[in-house]
Amino acid sequence: MVGATIGTKLVQLGHQVKMGSRTANNEKTAKWVNENGANASSGTFADAAAFGEIIFNCTKGDGAMDAVKAAGENNLNGKILVDVSNPLDFSKGMPPSLYPALSNTNSLGEEIQRTFPNAKVVKALNTMSCVLMVNPALVPGSHDLFMCGNDEAAKASVTDILKSFGWTSILDLGDITAARAMEAVLPIWVRLMMKYQSPNFNFKIVK
Amino acid sequence: MVGATIGTKLVQLGHQVKMGSRTANNEKTAKWVNENGANASSGTFADAAAFGEIIFNCTKGDGAMDAVKAAGENNLNGKILVDVSNPLDFSKGMPPSLYPALSNTNSLGEEIQRTFPNAKVVKALNTMSCVLMVNPALVPGSHDLFMCGNDEAAKASVTDILKSFGWTSILDLGDITAARAMEAVLPIWVRLMMKYQSPNFNFKIVK
Repeated sequence: MVGATIGTKLVQLGHQVKMGSRTANNEKTAKWVNENGANASSGTFADAAAFGEIIFNCTKGDGAMDAVKAAGENNLNGKILVDVSNPLDFSKGMPPSLYPALSNTNSLGEEIQRTFPNAKVVKALNTMSCVLMVNPALVPGSHDLFMCGNDEAAKASVTDILKSFGWTSILDLGDITAARAMEAVLPIWVRLMMKYQSPNFNFKIVK
Repeated sequence: MVGATIGTKLVQLGHQVKMGSRTANNEKTAKWVNENGANASSGTFADAAAFGEIIFNCTKGDGAMDAVKAAGENNLNGKILVDVSNPLDFSKGMPPSLYPALSNTNSLGEEIQRTFPNAKVVKALNTMSCVLMVNPALVPGSHDLFMCGNDEAAKASVTDILKSFGWTSILDLGDITAARAMEAVLPIWVRLMMKYQSPNFNFKIVK
């Protein structure tokens, strides 16, 4: 759902997008391709990673590392990898917890960066609903998007894409270790979503 | 520092405050008493808990459970205990992590409630600097204070105190298990503080 939402937005903005999934003949991705015209295509995770100049990891937390590994190191080396996913464990129902091995003193963003040291991992977009990711005006006024990563040029490129999505306030929290902090926002995001019975809200830092 | 700041504010608002510490003849609390007049006094944690109608736990995360235990179950039973502290582990420097046993699927707020089932634990004020806790106008405009706890009447009483501090937007996140989410805000609070080189900011939820 996150991948389809971001993929559609990228196609609308004139980009060519290849949606990856575990198998090349996935029904959901075929439907997405069908709805999104000539600039949309699909393939395996490796096909998508080989195709893209910039890769978005929009997989669920429990399968994220497997998906990124399936994309293949050669297809990721030197490329920007925008990590949107969160290490959420829903195995005990709502609200979810974070996987202990991927939180507190580690994070999914760091684990991906460590596993693929030549990829340029940028953590972004993980603290909001997917509809808001590509349409920040859904929540009125100014509100914030957090970002982190080790590579300044990669963060500048991702900032350009985020601005094209409509984001005006992008807070760079520093190197990829800040992904610990960004992913740890999810527990309060979920509690707020339960309180408001809606995902249409966002955080704003007031100074 | 948190206790002195909140204690001074409470004295200024006309309350009687007994500041607790490990020993009855603590130099810092003696200085605080001296500066705050007739409504300020000090004693052991047990003295303070016995004295107060409402107890504020403003201890550091690494000593919080010991401090609350030293306050004594008989002195806490039936009373409101406002838990302001966070289970921050600074043993590896900045930024801190959270103690694994007190985070993710547990929290300091829950641990205190579980240890003292007849206390009415309300988690509040833990996601901001102590100066901002008692002077929300330090950050301009509207911004939010998170609160949770199992006892509705206790949360209503704490809300009255928070309003007397100047807070206008208090978000009740539900029962004490929401303390997991509130304490997990600290990692991003610390990153933002490092980014801005100032603790004078706060979160606002925009809908």
